[in-house]
Amino acid sequence: MSTKEIPYKIYLNENEMPEYWYNVRADMKNKPAPLLNPGTHKPMTAEELEGVFCSELVKQELDDTNRRIPIPKEIRDFYKMYRPSPLVRAYCLEKKLDTPAKIYYKFEGNNTSGSHKLNSAIAQAYYAKEQGLKGVTTETGAGQWGTALSMACAYLGLDCKVFMVKCSYEQKPFRREVMRTYGADVTPSPSDKTEVGRKMLAEFPGTTGSLGCAISEAVEAAVTQKGYRYVLGSVLSQVLLHQSIIGMECKTALDKYGIKPDIIIGCAGGGSNLGGLISPFMGEKLRGEQDYRIIAVEPASCPSLTRGVFAYDFCDTGKVCPLAKMYTLGSSFIPSANHAGGLRYHGMSSVLSQLYHDGYMEAMTVEQTAVFKAAEDFARIEGILPAPESSHAIKAAIDEALKCKETGEEKTILFGLTGTGYFDMLAYQSFNDGKMADYIPSDADLKKGFDGIPKFPGNEF
Amino acid sequence: MSTKEIPYKIYLNENEMPEYWYNVRADMKNKPAPLLNPGTHKPMTAEELEGVFCSELVKQELDDTNRRIPIPKEIRDFYKMYRPSPLVRAYCLEKKLDTPAKIYYKFEGNNTSGSHKLNSAIAQAYYAKEQGLKGVTTETGAGQWGTALSMACAYLGLDCKVFMVKCSYEQKPFRREVMRTYGADVTPSPSDKTEVGRKMLAEFPGTTGSLGCAISEAVEAAVTQKGYRYVLGSVLSQVLLHQSIIGMECKTALDKYGIKPDIIIGCAGGGSNLGGLISPFMGEKLRGEQDYRIIAVEPASCPSLTRGVFAYDFCDTGKVCPLAKMYTLGSSFIPSANHAGGLRYHGMSSVLSQLYHDGYMEAMTVEQTAVFKAAEDFARIEGILPAPESSHAIKAAIDEALKCKETGEEKTILFGLTGTGYFDMLAYQSFNDGKMADYIPSDADLKKGFDGIPKFPGNEF
Repeated sequence: MSTKEIPYKIYLNENEMPEYWYNVRADMKNKPAPLLNPGTHKPMTAEELEGVFCSELVKQELDDTNRRIPIPKEIRDFYKMYRPSPLVRAYCLEKKLDTPAKIYYKFEGNNTSGSHKLNSAIAQAYYAKEQGLKGVTTETGAGQWGTALSMACAYLGLDCKVFMVKCSYEQKPFRREVMRTYGADVTPSPSDKTEVGRKMLAEFPGTTGSLGCAISEAVEAAVTQKGYRYVLGSVLSQVLLHQSIIGMECKTALDKYGIKPDIIIGCAGGGSNLGGLISPFMGEKLRGEQDYRIIAVEPASCPSLTRGVFAYDFCDTGKVCPLAKMYTLGSSFIPSANHAGGLRYHGMSSVLSQLYHDGYMEAMTVEQTAVFKAAEDFARIEGILPAPESSHAIKAAIDEALKCKETGEEKTILFGLTGTGYFDMLAYQSFNDGKMADYIPSDADLKKGFDGIPKFPGNEF
Repeated sequence: MSTKEIPYKIYLNENEMPEYWYNVRADMKNKPAPLLNPGTHKPMTAEELEGVFCSELVKQELDDTNRRIPIPKEIRDFYKMYRPSPLVRAYCLEKKLDTPAKIYYKFEGNNTSGSHKLNSAIAQAYYAKEQGLKGVTTETGAGQWGTALSMACAYLGLDCKVFMVKCSYEQKPFRREVMRTYGADVTPSPSDKTEVGRKMLAEFPGTTGSLGCAISEAVEAAVTQKGYRYVLGSVLSQVLLHQSIIGMECKTALDKYGIKPDIIIGCAGGGSNLGGLISPFMGEKLRGEQDYRIIAVEPASCPSLTRGVFAYDFCDTGKVCPLAKMYTLGSSFIPSANHAGGLRYHGMSSVLSQLYHDGYMEAMTVEQTAVFKAAEDFARIEGILPAPESSHAIKAAIDEALKCKETGEEKTILFGLTGTGYFDMLAYQSFNDGKMADYIPSDADLKKGFDGIPKFPGNEF
């Protein structure tokens, strides 16, 4: 431990900013399993993937050997507009908890998209632009990813077509307007703009949509229009790669002050934030240079790591995407409508799934009323109104800090604060009014989801 | 000019943070006129003011001689949680405008209240706490001030009673929920909780309220309850004092890189942001040490400096507050309901009014569709979604930069970016849909407001 006084917020100088992304797959002995063609069950080739994704991103998706991927100067310049993000020492929270633990959080909410999603949005938009494309398509649920992508596209002058899950489109008009302000074309999904959408509307009239369906529509819109490709905000290995900027900045800042975290905590939906935060730390752990406890925190209502199965599964409802090997609840699993806390995706990044499977990472679940209580406490003590997603990590960090209080251990806890909750006030209102409930799927609920996972030789679970 | 490379964002280190507020009144030859008792038309004494305001704040309100007011350590510690705010070099905007001008903005939106208001909220709450009070009361319109005060009170464990203009309470439920999340008691105004409110409800059933009325209710609630005082987010000299932290940080950062701004621009409603931003610069100008062009930007729909009169007027509709000498449109003036851009107050800080009257400052108006166009351009280019209020300054800064393009002058422009627009998406939506209109009050409209200004010897205008 250094004796240097630790500031409330550690900001890197521009000359300390990372110049490459950290590809943790290079350090993994057991590589994440390749994406499979859903028809042939053979690994997707670069050629096949390039019909859907930008060429350079396909290269990144398939690269599991190069540890350092240089960040193009144009992306580093964009990062300068809102990065470095602060690494904050939670002095006030520590004091309030009366814990000997030292708590740090890396705060990714200080940009207009309100979350870490922008880190990958600008990278994906940049490569689309470099490839001479006209635009990109994507889906968005709560709207953080759609907002981030709209911002990146506006900056680069690219078309941005967003399929927004219909119930969010209607319930979150302000998110929609942010995207429109950034010039995006926002369509409620399911829509009549795609085959998949029309089919869904005919089959389930009045449906309010799902993330899985919006993905299918966005992919279809990309492959059927000249000059477009599909981009995705989580799950994919390329996304974790771009998000490693979080962990790289974090590690540089901690190293500067001689701080070594004992526990690293992140919320986990598709895995983009957690994967990015832990990348360089996990690299050291995989190489046996350091040991860290790494904890993924999931909502009890959507527990893919803790209660899912490790198998090849569809990434989308329409089953147009490649199959990914991951911890999954089945692509038909949708968390209860009561669930307001985000992190609703049925699967988990293949990279994190493999690391968890191999025992390099722990996972735990928390229930949403406890999450919102932690969020409210955190807001009042540390001043930042956190996104429900981020608050899963807050809850776990507080619990670890309280354990330290009991044992007297001076552990150093680092967690990812992925974003702000300004567009989640309906959920906060439900909590403020005492109307929020918890929800834990029954084994029978889960079985229904598992039944939809494709069966083929080698995919036993 | 230094040859040091200027980073995108200049952050001060903790040891460079200001330790005192800058009281620009100390540099003024013509001091701002004192507040008057509305009954006797005699200057308000400290004793009279202490019935409404905290004692230490009354001292600050009346102090026009001490240039440096030390910032208590507890407030400096709180500032560390969200300050320093970044001073950003708008490289992308400069490039887009193709201007030789150098543009900087001081961004105050990176905290949960979303604006600079927190700078004074924590100071006022701190002095209330120090005085052993139970809580504070206030009013809020759009909700930025109420949110900031709620945050400060939650941090210090003070009661916070907010009277929120009823139409905002209903149209901005999310702002209300942020305040509730921070534990504030939020009441739509007019309410039946106060004499003034009940009178207003009886006289104008169905009224959706006004800022002036909410002020009257908050003052009444403070003076009729033991252990409470009233606090205000703008207009008062104490507020400008606290907001000088903006200008102090700004000046320290600019001096560090040897940069001297030629033009300083801020939006002006009650004057808190502009007054804070310019304080140390105006001090140099008043002492004849430096020259700066200083520009206040007002909405064309609420033009107190540019079309108001310089006179003693009521600060609130209920006429329970002291009289202030200021540029005013009359306390009964309410901008058209079409006006979405904030900055709706009928008067202007006495400090700024005097400086403007004495020719140390310019003022100009901009229309709201042009403001929202500038906001949208700025969002797309610089990545930050600005508050409508802040966007008035953006519009003026862009226009000055374009003038430089014509003349080839390499002027340095500094403007205040006071906050973010996340809770203003209804206004953005109206702009996105092409439904926003401009509004300029006629001379007859203004005359009605002027007619309500009190007439007494010495108050000719």
